[in-house]
Amino acid sequence: MDYSLTQDTLESATLTECDFTEFERKAVYRNIRSRRDIRHFRSEPVPNEALARIIQAAHRGPSVGFMQPWDFVLIRDISVRQEVQKLFWREREAAACFYDEPRRSQYLSLKLEGILDSPINLCVTCDPTRGDVVLGRNAVPETDIYSTCCAVENLWLAARSEGIGLGWVSILKLPQLRKLLGIPAHIVPVAYLCLGYPVEFQDRPLLESVGWRDRVPLEELLHFDNWQDRSPDDATWQGLDQALNLEAEDYKPAKPSQQPS
Amino acid sequence: MDYSLTQDTLESATLTECDFTEFERKAVYRNIRSRRDIRHFRSEPVPNEALARIIQAAHRGPSVGFMQPWDFVLIRDISVRQEVQKLFWREREAAACFYDEPRRSQYLSLKLEGILDSPINLCVTCDPTRGDVVLGRNAVPETDIYSTCCAVENLWLAARSEGIGLGWVSILKLPQLRKLLGIPAHIVPVAYLCLGYPVEFQDRPLLESVGWRDRVPLEELLHFDNWQDRSPDDATWQGLDQALNLEAEDYKPAKPSQQPS
Repeated sequence: MDYSLTQDTLESATLTECDFTEFERKAVYRNIRSRRDIRHFRSEPVPNEALARIIQAAHRGPSVGFMQPWDFVLIRDISVRQEVQKLFWREREAAACFYDEPRRSQYLSLKLEGILDSPINLCVTCDPTRGDVVLGRNAVPETDIYSTCCAVENLWLAARSEGIGLGWVSILKLPQLRKLLGIPAHIVPVAYLCLGYPVEFQDRPLLESVGWRDRVPLEELLHFDNWQDRSPDDATWQGLDQALNLEAEDYKPAKPSQQPS
Repeated sequence: MDYSLTQDTLESATLTECDFTEFERKAVYRNIRSRRDIRHFRSEPVPNEALARIIQAAHRGPSVGFMQPWDFVLIRDISVRQEVQKLFWREREAAACFYDEPRRSQYLSLKLEGILDSPINLCVTCDPTRGDVVLGRNAVPETDIYSTCCAVENLWLAARSEGIGLGWVSILKLPQLRKLLGIPAHIVPVAYLCLGYPVEFQDRPLLESVGWRDRVPLEELLHFDNWQDRSPDDATWQGLDQALNLEAEDYKPAKPSQQPS
């Protein structure tokens, strides 16, 4: 993030006093922007105190009807993780069948998991039966899963602020994963995560930097009052487009003042 | 959060140098802990620049295969919002049928939305058809929705750091909501959000403070290597329990140094 740019924008926009200082706000935005999906881990253990803090951050996530549908299965046991990795490798092989060359070779060349390299794995689950009649869940029952995902994002951001990397392994078949971890059939394993200190936090997402897929220009994702209305012609939207373009695409995270040993 | 406590914990736990300073880390945790679901809004408009920044934060969310499946429908039009509110009131009435007294009266007494009070509404959607064969989405197709929820949490946290409140209205029937906003049938409206400056950010979630539901002790949500194993008897988990108990339940957000006018 180009801070001089952000600072100007912040100052011009602050109509209302806020209980977050400008410095805190910048920290929040830097946290969000420098979060990465990590697949290359160093071997140092994650201290239990840091682990506790990031799980607390997840538990502070929003949940429909204060349902708190999540559980946390922490996995250090290497034999369990070896079985999970085998499951990953089968699914990866299967997934490759759906790509043509040269995409297939590129897919197979990407390191997409750190199940064994990372010192700890964490499966975040969702229990759809928690609570009785959950307030706010009547129209869309899947809001329990939505809540769990928000908790995972909290955990991810908290980890980033601790210098801890997180990689989400999304290609594990749920029935088999449940069996490996002893998870009951009615519980949904929402996220299987690898946690540890990363080799580095790269400036851009891996799939962007290797040319797999581009970031979508944000302007293409906006709609005004109705899905069909793609341009903010109403005067009340004035400046929104311009503000969107203030995003500094050349954002680089601050360099650590001291390299880890 | 009791910062003196946190500081001790942070210092004892920092085995590895991190590119986030202690101050930045604290800001991230304060952001996560002081985020609230807001239903009471003040009337001041949200500046377009701030709106652009929080939508950018959402767009920086993680997504499976860098799919970026989200769209943002911004709604200021009061006639559209009136229709959405009518939809909410029908669903609220229907939901009340499932509670017995005194729970029913308590449910009906709660203010659960700020659709018209807030200056702006935002519907965040998910397009399951975006991208061709999405990397990482083969085992669990719903990961597109998971990604969208993570983006919403980014938006929520960014808003909090700007002093902007967000309320998630989760009881809107999707087919009707699609019709009101002109959203195509294949697009999933994941989150309908109210945005604006709140009357206050309360210390605790509303449903906790009115006694609707308690926070689950975090210890009850942990599992070790297997779902059945609820106690960290392995020496490698030593200190985790203790660290979890360091959480200060009497956390209060810092008071604003200057009250908004």
